[in-house]
Amino acid sequence: MYTLGDIAGFIDAELIGDASLEINGLSASSKVKKGQLTYISNSKYKLDLLNSNASAVILTKDLLDDCSTNALVVDNVYLAFAKITHYFKQQSNHLNGIHLSAQINSKNIADSCTIGEEVIVGKNCTIGANTTIEQGVTIGDNVTIQPNVVILQNTTIGNNVVISAGVVIASEGFGNALDKQGHWHAIAHLGNVLIGNNITIGANTVIDRGTLEDTQIHNGVCLDNLVHIAHNVILGADTAIAAGVTIGGSAILGKRCQIGGGSVIASHMHLADDTVVTGSSTVDKHLNKGHYTGFTSISLHSNWKRTQMWLLKLDKIAQYLNIKLKNLKKGK
Amino acid sequence: MYTLGDIAGFIDAELIGDASLEINGLSASSKVKKGQLTYISNSKYKLDLLNSNASAVILTKDLLDDCSTNALVVDNVYLAFAKITHYFKQQSNHLNGIHLSAQINSKNIADSCTIGEEVIVGKNCTIGANTTIEQGVTIGDNVTIQPNVVILQNTTIGNNVVISAGVVIASEGFGNALDKQGHWHAIAHLGNVLIGNNITIGANTVIDRGTLEDTQIHNGVCLDNLVHIAHNVILGADTAIAAGVTIGGSAILGKRCQIGGGSVIASHMHLADDTVVTGSSTVDKHLNKGHYTGFTSISLHSNWKRTQMWLLKLDKIAQYLNIKLKNLKKGK
Amino acid sequence: MYTLGDIAGFIDAELIGDASLEINGLSASSKVKKGQLTYISNSKYKLDLLNSNASAVILTKDLLDDCSTNALVVDNVYLAFAKITHYFKQQSNHLNGIHLSAQINSKNIADSCTIGEEVIVGKNCTIGANTTIEQGVTIGDNVTIQPNVVILQNTTIGNNVVISAGVVIASEGFGNALDKQGHWHAIAHLGNVLIGNNITIGANTVIDRGTLEDTQIHNGVCLDNLVHIAHNVILGADTAIAAGVTIGGSAILGKRCQIGGGSVIASHMHLADDTVVTGSSTVDKHLNKGHYTGFTSISLHSNWKRTQMWLLKLDKIAQYLNIKLKNLKKGK
Repeated sequence: MYTLGDIAGFIDAELIGDASLEINGLSASSKVKKGQLTYISNSKYKLDLLNSNASAVILTKDLLDDCSTNALVVDNVYLAFAKITHYFKQQSNHLNGIHLSAQINSKNIADSCTIGEEVIVGKNCTIGANTTIEQGVTIGDNVTIQPNVVILQNTTIGNNVVISAGVVIASEGFGNALDKQGHWHAIAHLGNVLIGNNITIGANTVIDRGTLEDTQIHNGVCLDNLVHIAHNVILGADTAIAAGVTIGGSAILGKRCQIGGGSVIASHMHLADDTVVTGSSTVDKHLNKGHYTGFTSISLHSNWKRTQMWLLKLDKIAQYLNIKLKNLKKGK
Repeated sequence: MYTLGDIAGFIDAELIGDASLEINGLSASSKVKKGQLTYISNSKYKLDLLNSNASAVILTKDLLDDCSTNALVVDNVYLAFAKITHYFKQQSNHLNGIHLSAQINSKNIADSCTIGEEVIVGKNCTIGANTTIEQGVTIGDNVTIQPNVVILQNTTIGNNVVISAGVVIASEGFGNALDKQGHWHAIAHLGNVLIGNNITIGANTVIDRGTLEDTQIHNGVCLDNLVHIAHNVILGADTAIAAGVTIGGSAILGKRCQIGGGSVIASHMHLADDTVVTGSSTVDKHLNKGHYTGFTSISLHSNWKRTQMWLLKLDKIAQYLNIKLKNLKKGK
Repeated sequence: MYTLGDIAGFIDAELIGDASLEINGLSASSKVKKGQLTYISNSKYKLDLLNSNASAVILTKDLLDDCSTNALVVDNVYLAFAKITHYFKQQSNHLNGIHLSAQINSKNIADSCTIGEEVIVGKNCTIGANTTIEQGVTIGDNVTIQPNVVILQNTTIGNNVVISAGVVIASEGFGNALDKQGHWHAIAHLGNVLIGNNITIGANTVIDRGTLEDTQIHNGVCLDNLVHIAHNVILGADTAIAAGVTIGGSAILGKRCQIGGGSVIASHMHLADDTVVTGSSTVDKHLNKGHYTGFTSISLHSNWKRTQMWLLKLDKIAQYLNIKLKNLKKGK
């Protein structure tokens, strides 16, 4: 716990308000509670600011008039936020063996596991060799964890979950703020990972923890091998993701989606329930329910070279033929 | 070993035949032997069924007339199959140290390895720290296994093989059956992985075991890092796969194929001997010998936006210009 | 150390010169020093050969006239080079515990780590469970290494670096020479990996060592999860690479580049400082500073089928409409 005065010092902010106020956490502007610090980096979220219960807000000078609570005024809000996250990050503090405070209700736990403080493991679980489970992780019943898995602090895992070898859960998200000199400052991710019931996770797949909220894997999700699930992603119930898929930060997939292998889903995309994406597609739009595809079909290399040449000239061809977009009948 | 009566109970099937018959395994309909149970989910495989030596078949009512052996009648054959696989799955049962029954004929084995029952390791092998090798794995001579590798049950590895750090071999395939409620039921994969001689496998690559048959990596194959090889894939001799390639289930690649980095090969594709695929391509067709490519060449973002806009209008443009496909001279 | 006579024997070469000369290393033709052996596989590098300080050169007969130093004449230079690399490769020789010669100046080192000869670890470092660090690795101050990381021989890591779980550093590059029979011969990679200061590396990412030179990750680089960095790649300062990116061998990225998730950068590409590549793009050209994109935008599957059909016919359409490329106004 830090006072607002401490925090102003950490991020070199001008403090307008009560320096002795104790701040017990960080939160997104839309969800912030009393006692918490939030930030507002864009004037379009002004309303959040006015309506919030934040005990303090990091903001730029021009938004000060809209702030009815304690303010920390800085030049670069996102950078200040990135820096302050590190003060609220819980460090891993256990390196060897199974901590005495861990409550393990299963027998099939490899001796070579490293299990941290206050970890809870339910009944009928198996934990394979050389798996590390950090402090505060909760694991339900009938969970199989293969060897060489790493589950970082405060992850919650439900019942009937299979976690394959080499999986990493609750790694840091890829959020970084730039300073004036062009250097990156990593955000310490304070959210967790919530994994529901009846879930399978394939080998060497990685699931990042959330920034302030939690990354969520809902009941019945199936993940194949070498899948990347970024920070704050939500995967709806019974969604299946094939191998090699990369899902960007804050993407939200509905229930019963099916994503083919090798696809890329851009950050912040929303996919409706029952959306199907063919493998190797790039999801660069929000998608309503339906079956979507987006890749270049394979052809002989010599043909491909010609079609790519013409593809890059399509705009010129249209000009040459005097075709205007408005000439074309509307339609998908 | 279960009786057919047991199995009918497990999957809630109507049994037509001999309940006391002992079933010793599952098999694909085209390869089934006496004593085994198979399934037929599609009437186009009727002939397999008629000609098979199966001791019993899971099928739907409408195919019952074509069945000359014991039958287990269900509504959803694939789901019943998925459920029954779990009864035939051998569990990993060794978590700590090197099992007494393991035959290890090499000295350079890290103390921190976990090696299961009846594992055989040949001469001149090195096994790095924290590697886990499950029961029934056979490893030839001159095999180097780096740290943190996981090789699951009953894998066979030949001579002169290099397995890089973080590799997972014989993980579960990604095969799942849907029930009426839209929930997935994972198939327990009963096939193994066969790895030949003179093979290199790059770091953090994953090779899934087969469903009922084996996944096969033939002699001389080179796999780079972070490659995904799905269940039942066959890689022909001297085929080279660069980093980040995703190969879908049951794809078959011939000899001396070369697949560039980041490519995706869809499930069930067949690539002839000596097929070359440029990196980042999507293989969505069977391929004869040749050099193939399929991706969008990079351009300035502003140009890309225009070409994509016209690309999506090509059909409209053709209509506008009154171009019919039949007008165009045939050709690739 | 081998004599030139030894080496001629290893690769079955005709030796023209001093068989007793001692050779202390291999080098690229452009950087070779006295005492070293190099190779020249292409006559366009003749000038390198003439100007070099090489003590000996592997070459084909037709280049012999251009060689003023000791020569090893072979039919297949690249294959001979691949074979000889193995004689200069330092093997990992430590499998258990922390070697007595390691200098570790930090306390938070898990007991389950394996740390080789002459490793140096600076102040304020944390090394998680089951991490392996091979001989000759140097690690600076304030470095956090999560569990299950593998750092292979002679890697150099600066200060303030975070290496996430499952990362593999200094794995073998994917360089292979073909023999007459169509079999691959892996090159033993003799270069190292140099990692600067203030760097983050995401979970299950892999960085290969260089062939003869070093793979370089400059100060301030951020790498997300499941990234592949091939041999000899250079990532300029403050470059950020999102998840699932595959970077081919010898690609060089400038400073402050940003590469979106799931992109593929082909081998040998050069990207200027401040180049931005949208996620899921394929970089198949050298790029000047700018924002680039290259993928097929997603659409309904039915539309995609039509647009792909027309795309493959673009050349025919142009012929049909009698459009010549020269008709089209020049432009990007």
